[in-house]
Amino acid sequence: MTPKQLSILVIDENTIRASIIEAGLREAGHGQVTLVHDVHAIARRVSEVQPDVIVIDLENPNRDMLENMFNLSRAVKRPIAMFVDRSDQAAIEAAVDAGVSAYVVDGLRQERVKPILDMAISRFNAFSRMERELEDARNELESRKVIDKAKGILMRSKGLSEDEAYQLLRRTAMNQNRKISEIAQSLITASELLGGG
Amino acid sequence: MTPKQLSILVIDENTIRASIIEAGLREAGHGQVTLVHDVHAIARRVSEVQPDVIVIDLENPNRDMLENMFNLSRAVKRPIAMFVDRSDQAAIEAAVDAGVSAYVVDGLRQERVKPILDMAISRFNAFSRMERELEDARNELESRKVIDKAKGILMRSKGLSEDEAYQLLRRTAMNQNRKISEIAQSLITASELLGGG
Repeated sequence: MTPKQLSILVIDENTIRASIIEAGLREAGHGQVTLVHDVHAIARRVSEVQPDVIVIDLENPNRDMLENMFNLSRAVKRPIAMFVDRSDQAAIEAAVDAGVSAYVVDGLRQERVKPILDMAISRFNAFSRMERELEDARNELESRKVIDKAKGILMRSKGLSEDEAYQLLRRTAMNQNRKISEIAQSLITASELLGGG
Repeated sequence: MTPKQLSILVIDENTIRASIIEAGLREAGHGQVTLVHDVHAIARRVSEVQPDVIVIDLENPNRDMLENMFNLSRAVKRPIAMFVDRSDQAAIEAAVDAGVSAYVVDGLRQERVKPILDMAISRFNAFSRMERELEDARNELESRKVIDKAKGILMRSKGLSEDEAYQLLRRTAMNQNRKISEIAQSLITASELLGGG
């Protein structure tokens, strides 16, 4: 991703501050910038523009406004850089929990826009990578539990060895063009229905 | 953790900038601050002071210095806030990868020290939480693989049901005051040695 290809959505109710951010982005070579001045139109604009990055400048947001932005952050799964003029510890923690990749308190300046954007993207990528790893590990664990339960049923009911039971599940999955864990789940369900579980 | 109880190690070769950070910390109510001016003494001072948070100000670090700090970050497993005056995208990414919780480019100002510190701690905690979850999931997966393999051996060699095999492992673990996965691993090792694996 070269800077020029990034589509950036900037949300700012304040025109002067918006122009600072815009100038910083232009300076950094970002051409594809969409500006939104009406904070209430954000969700719609995000789904229209499908930006790669979102920059939100809120000056002094009240609690409701912050909560809205944090909800947006949870929903959009994109790098978000947020500028606010002041913040307490609770809001900072809430921003981190909501996945805001850069939450900058009292630090809006034209020449800082680029490094903060770079940072938001890097952090977002690092976090997403870890989230994916966690999801993979949990899925593998879940599917393993199901497969092992199914193997147990086959071993007991058909007198197979563990390996034979696994091979039978595997063959069935291949024949039906489905995942082994799906076949295993079907077997468990059937076995429960038939009272053999 | 109230602010006053946090032990903070500040690393800064520049006395003026160090005093800006110190003033910001004092203003925020942080009393327990240790200042280090010699960057080469950091690793030693970290292990002496055992700080809760580390603040590093580097002005314009060269590549080697940055690399040293990133290695420190990987090693210490603590929230780290870093201030640098300029940075390119590669260094920003390297900072994120090294677990630097706040990497602030060209943003050192007394009144920003507190929110940046709060941010570093929040981010560090969120990241550690996720790291722990990932580790737990992977450990559970690993131990499940071992236990299932051991169950298979017992089912085959002793004609037990899956549940009986598990209960046998569990009872043995309780009797020996060890983890089920340890007992399982012993059984697998023995079975491999005896050629039954």
